[in-house]
Amino acid sequence: MYTGVMAYRAAVVGASGYTGAELLRILAGHPEIEAVHATADSNAGVAVRSLFPSLAPAYPDLVCDALEPAALEGLDAVFCALPHGASQQLVPDLVGRVGHVIDLGADFRLDAAQYQEWYGETHGAPGLLGDFAYGLPELFRDAITAAPHVAAPGCYPTAAALALAPLLADGLIEPTGVIVDAASGVSGRGRGLSAPSLYSEANESVVAYGLLRHRHTGEIEHALAGAHGGDVQVLFTPHLVPMTRGILATCYARPTRDGLTSEQLLAHYREFYADEAFVLVTDEPPATKSTLASNACHVTVRADERTGTVLALAALDNLVKGASGQAVQAANLLFDLPETTGLTNLGIVP
Amino acid sequence: MYTGVMAYRAAVVGASGYTGAELLRILAGHPEIEAVHATADSNAGVAVRSLFPSLAPAYPDLVCDALEPAALEGLDAVFCALPHGASQQLVPDLVGRVGHVIDLGADFRLDAAQYQEWYGETHGAPGLLGDFAYGLPELFRDAITAAPHVAAPGCYPTAAALALAPLLADGLIEPTGVIVDAASGVSGRGRGLSAPSLYSEANESVVAYGLLRHRHTGEIEHALAGAHGGDVQVLFTPHLVPMTRGILATCYARPTRDGLTSEQLLAHYREFYADEAFVLVTDEPPATKSTLASNACHVTVRADERTGTVLALAALDNLVKGASGQAVQAANLLFDLPETTGLTNLGIVP
Amino acid sequence: MYTGVMAYRAAVVGASGYTGAELLRILAGHPEIEAVHATADSNAGVAVRSLFPSLAPAYPDLVCDALEPAALEGLDAVFCALPHGASQQLVPDLVGRVGHVIDLGADFRLDAAQYQEWYGETHGAPGLLGDFAYGLPELFRDAITAAPHVAAPGCYPTAAALALAPLLADGLIEPTGVIVDAASGVSGRGRGLSAPSLYSEANESVVAYGLLRHRHTGEIEHALAGAHGGDVQVLFTPHLVPMTRGILATCYARPTRDGLTSEQLLAHYREFYADEAFVLVTDEPPATKSTLASNACHVTVRADERTGTVLALAALDNLVKGASGQAVQAANLLFDLPETTGLTNLGIVP
Amino acid sequence: MYTGVMAYRAAVVGASGYTGAELLRILAGHPEIEAVHATADSNAGVAVRSLFPSLAPAYPDLVCDALEPAALEGLDAVFCALPHGASQQLVPDLVGRVGHVIDLGADFRLDAAQYQEWYGETHGAPGLLGDFAYGLPELFRDAITAAPHVAAPGCYPTAAALALAPLLADGLIEPTGVIVDAASGVSGRGRGLSAPSLYSEANESVVAYGLLRHRHTGEIEHALAGAHGGDVQVLFTPHLVPMTRGILATCYARPTRDGLTSEQLLAHYREFYADEAFVLVTDEPPATKSTLASNACHVTVRADERTGTVLALAALDNLVKGASGQAVQAANLLFDLPETTGLTNLGIVP
Repeated sequence: MYTGVMAYRAAVVGASGYTGAELLRILAGHPEIEAVHATADSNAGVAVRSLFPSLAPAYPDLVCDALEPAALEGLDAVFCALPHGASQQLVPDLVGRVGHVIDLGADFRLDAAQYQEWYGETHGAPGLLGDFAYGLPELFRDAITAAPHVAAPGCYPTAAALALAPLLADGLIEPTGVIVDAASGVSGRGRGLSAPSLYSEANESVVAYGLLRHRHTGEIEHALAGAHGGDVQVLFTPHLVPMTRGILATCYARPTRDGLTSEQLLAHYREFYADEAFVLVTDEPPATKSTLASNACHVTVRADERTGTVLALAALDNLVKGASGQAVQAANLLFDLPETTGLTNLGIVP
Repeated sequence: MYTGVMAYRAAVVGASGYTGAELLRILAGHPEIEAVHATADSNAGVAVRSLFPSLAPAYPDLVCDALEPAALEGLDAVFCALPHGASQQLVPDLVGRVGHVIDLGADFRLDAAQYQEWYGETHGAPGLLGDFAYGLPELFRDAITAAPHVAAPGCYPTAAALALAPLLADGLIEPTGVIVDAASGVSGRGRGLSAPSLYSEANESVVAYGLLRHRHTGEIEHALAGAHGGDVQVLFTPHLVPMTRGILATCYARPTRDGLTSEQLLAHYREFYADEAFVLVTDEPPATKSTLASNACHVTVRADERTGTVLALAALDNLVKGASGQAVQAANLLFDLPETTGLTNLGIVP
Repeated sequence: MYTGVMAYRAAVVGASGYTGAELLRILAGHPEIEAVHATADSNAGVAVRSLFPSLAPAYPDLVCDALEPAALEGLDAVFCALPHGASQQLVPDLVGRVGHVIDLGADFRLDAAQYQEWYGETHGAPGLLGDFAYGLPELFRDAITAAPHVAAPGCYPTAAALALAPLLADGLIEPTGVIVDAASGVSGRGRGLSAPSLYSEANESVVAYGLLRHRHTGEIEHALAGAHGGDVQVLFTPHLVPMTRGILATCYARPTRDGLTSEQLLAHYREFYADEAFVLVTDEPPATKSTLASNACHVTVRADERTGTVLALAALDNLVKGASGQAVQAANLLFDLPETTGLTNLGIVP
Repeated sequence: MYTGVMAYRAAVVGASGYTGAELLRILAGHPEIEAVHATADSNAGVAVRSLFPSLAPAYPDLVCDALEPAALEGLDAVFCALPHGASQQLVPDLVGRVGHVIDLGADFRLDAAQYQEWYGETHGAPGLLGDFAYGLPELFRDAITAAPHVAAPGCYPTAAALALAPLLADGLIEPTGVIVDAASGVSGRGRGLSAPSLYSEANESVVAYGLLRHRHTGEIEHALAGAHGGDVQVLFTPHLVPMTRGILATCYARPTRDGLTSEQLLAHYREFYADEAFVLVTDEPPATKSTLASNACHVTVRADERTGTVLALAALDNLVKGASGQAVQAANLLFDLPETTGLTNLGIVP
């Protein structure tokens, strides 16, 4: 809600999708960044309050435009919430015109070779990849602060990375044989029309997808390599579960030493995340519901001596800490604002 | 979240229930009222952050106490979020000790005779009923401002009253033969353990309950009488639907004059609610989802010439505008704060 | 499952939709009617077991064909489960080739004038309307038995008609001022891709739609007129609720005489439906869940002396009694089989 | 439904719980076994049709009795669907009186030492353990046929065993380091009143539970040891997901040889299960929804050369193939009936 003269003016590109709408919702409560422009090609000319009546109080007059880079000239930040592949077309036109680009898609998260490997296509703007920091503040804060632009991480990689980073950072687990078994709510599929996203297909069903080769595998390995300081190999199995929001990552790895206990690991996690406002280390297994609509990530960890396994779990809201909230968190870093600015809302329970 | 010296100190009595937890969530974002005390008899000694990990960032140290009126001495406000019948036992011990009581139960909403009629029992503290204003600000703002204490309305009555008030206030519908057909999410049943609240019973089912004689009928009639300035007679049919939060009231009435059009009625609603921050008059039928976790109520209206009926609909979140949010809205009035203080969060979509 | 030489050979036209798949499921358990042919234009060449793995045991070899009327030549029955408007194009090519057509769409339910009024278009095969009986066996059994073809009723009209018929048949309520307020699961929208059918839009939301002029209004009035023996005027408000299957109709009407009691009405309903295998009159409000995946319809009734209203409720599974099960029930009548043949499965609880 | 003189007369002990009700539902469609007696201590005297209106057509007159072993004298089969620990108290009184006991609890699945290890208590009837076969027909058919009584397997162990058995039977994976990561619908928690079973707690949430030491771990290892012919060590992580029915087990293991391909493994699974009526090997990842309300188990398998892992998945309905359906399947074996008798209903989609 505009309540005076804000410091920064931003655009949300792709405002009619779920992460776009979530950006508008979060920015409405942000005291320093104002969303002054919204684009939605298929809904150009439609008022934000018509697309999303929930946003009406904060955006009584904002109307979606068709995307036109020149119209974004001079903005302090542009959040791109576009389908895969679109932002690599757009960003070359954008970087010279605006202060910072925060891209919520997968286009600028990997280097060109990784991108080619996991997405099966040549990157369209490889020369700009170096200008984008991987926007997971808990693990890459310095890089974000130093970068002009940010590639906000995917929802699964955020959960997997926050679950496993404390183990890899200290060499407590082997960097191979890591399994990430995760469950996502249906909003993770976006707002596009497709049969698996239909209520009657997704409801009352759990199903795995993308077996062995889901594209987020490369990004998970990339994020974990950053934490580890060396290559990490992951088998990733995502599942679709009947809920709107939420991701739970249940991760398995082999310890590098005998005798680790759950108590030791929990203490290590508490220390590792001691200064992090958005990561809560819990004794009990985390529930996605506890993070609903907040920028929180809840994690826990166990050592199983019987089978020689370390188990790490993370829960978050895929549209907030897994997308739009984390993008705003990174923007706060880019603008040198306190990292929690506009992100202090608590999870909605029940 | 405590961020300095707040103006007012409050307690949440019954903090382990859904409306109690919701009060803590909302007050965590309130700049002027701080929840400094929480009680939960069955969870005495348990930290709020353990009961609700979502609340951990705002209440790192708050622990639930057993209820002890003397311990509340001197607080500016006490929010009572207790099962039916409990607050009429408690309030006599409370009124002399604290600034304001905001009761979220049904105990202080009706006069003694109405209470007897609909609850089938004699009221336990009839002498205090006059000290409680019916806390629906959009219709009873002056009374709230003038009263020491507030009885926050029930969820169904709030929806029905906001849907129908503009019609009754102007005498556009007959005050008899009014039908309120409403659907509620399961959180409306509270956190008590009962078979109809089980996931496997409530999921994939719609069922009516309380046919003809649901207790909220009396309160709906009471609230509508306030808007109308005379008796109103309502047949109320609530339904349980498989969602956690949300109420939709679909109301039917007979117009008092011929020739009313939907356009006229919508214009009348827009004028009636022009100054209300929390009521949005929509052209399209309102969806409960658009109000999720916000203090908004969305309403629309239609005139059906073919059958001689006026149709009015209202959607809200039963735990916010239907309970804890509205209680905070009333508290803002009691403290002469801007009515929207701490209540500007938008609905969570999707 | 084919278990010998069955008496009748049938086709399911539109086998990839929800009602088509449901027909295949039900016929798999039918001892006398075998589905030997399935069509699905957009899935021509795809095996039924691939489209619906659940059907694999019964249809190991059946493959969907593109629709070709000549290929249906000589079949005993053709079930048409097509989008609105398609069967009036198809049926003229079909009636001379096959024994019976059972159409699950809206094309042959109304007379030409009613069709024009509610669907806003001229009927494409008015000369064939007289060959189709309205396929609600409990109210139109004789007409079905006498007809060559059947128009299976819509889901909402079935629920409304079974709820209200005993009242109208005996003149216990006024035929005007009838209100049908109903809730449907999302499968009622079919399998087409549309935003309101997306999980993330429909979940955790209740919303009304088609206010005042939903097309099923005309059909409800038509079915009730049949029960009443004269015109009936209905205001119909459907709602979408977050579940896959199920319809609950909550109906309101004014009694024609004073002094009716709920006990009298319940006794009347029990007598009215005494010989009906699929209608259960319940003392308690019926839950849609109790009818899930069965051909049952549960109904109850109340008289409210206080407001002068009769309340009647009906619950059913929109894809079974509201579509495919009822179509098979009608086919049993056409073939002079016991009406419950292949339809004795009980509801799935929980 | 009683449709003549059936061969066998049975009792359902614990008929008011979910697996008890499901037994009544399945037996209603069984042509050879009739449920003539139902017990439910807390609902003694209550008609089955009142407890479960869905069952009314098949059980118009059956009333729940309090459990009295003498009243079961001479029955051909008794299905025990009781809370953990209850059947070991009951069975000693039962075995001499009735033909066969099929116990759906965990009491007779493990040997006495395993029981002590995983349940932390001494078994109450160790002398009878040898009379109970582990009732997973696909893997222990001969033992069931030869035994007087059957311990029907748990839902998770059934899914895990059917997913992994083809690999272990042929020595294709290492018997240590096996991970079973599984998700269950809320009905798996039974009908008892507990907070995590409440709609508002379970909905819109995924959470793991029983980390490292869930009691089904021992049973999974027991079942897999049977398939393997030697000890198998498993780490089992169950999750609660927001749906009523369904289990998906996603299993990870290390291959014993290089070069295995997904195609080879799928072919091996198809051969292994070629004669099994209830196991469907699918190319695509199985969805729990495809098995809803049927006795089917859908499985698939993959080899991941990149990480050196074999991935096996199984989906089933926890109340049917994971409980009551499988119990009836075992009863068919005990009575030398075709194994599919009464179990041919297809899954309910959507």
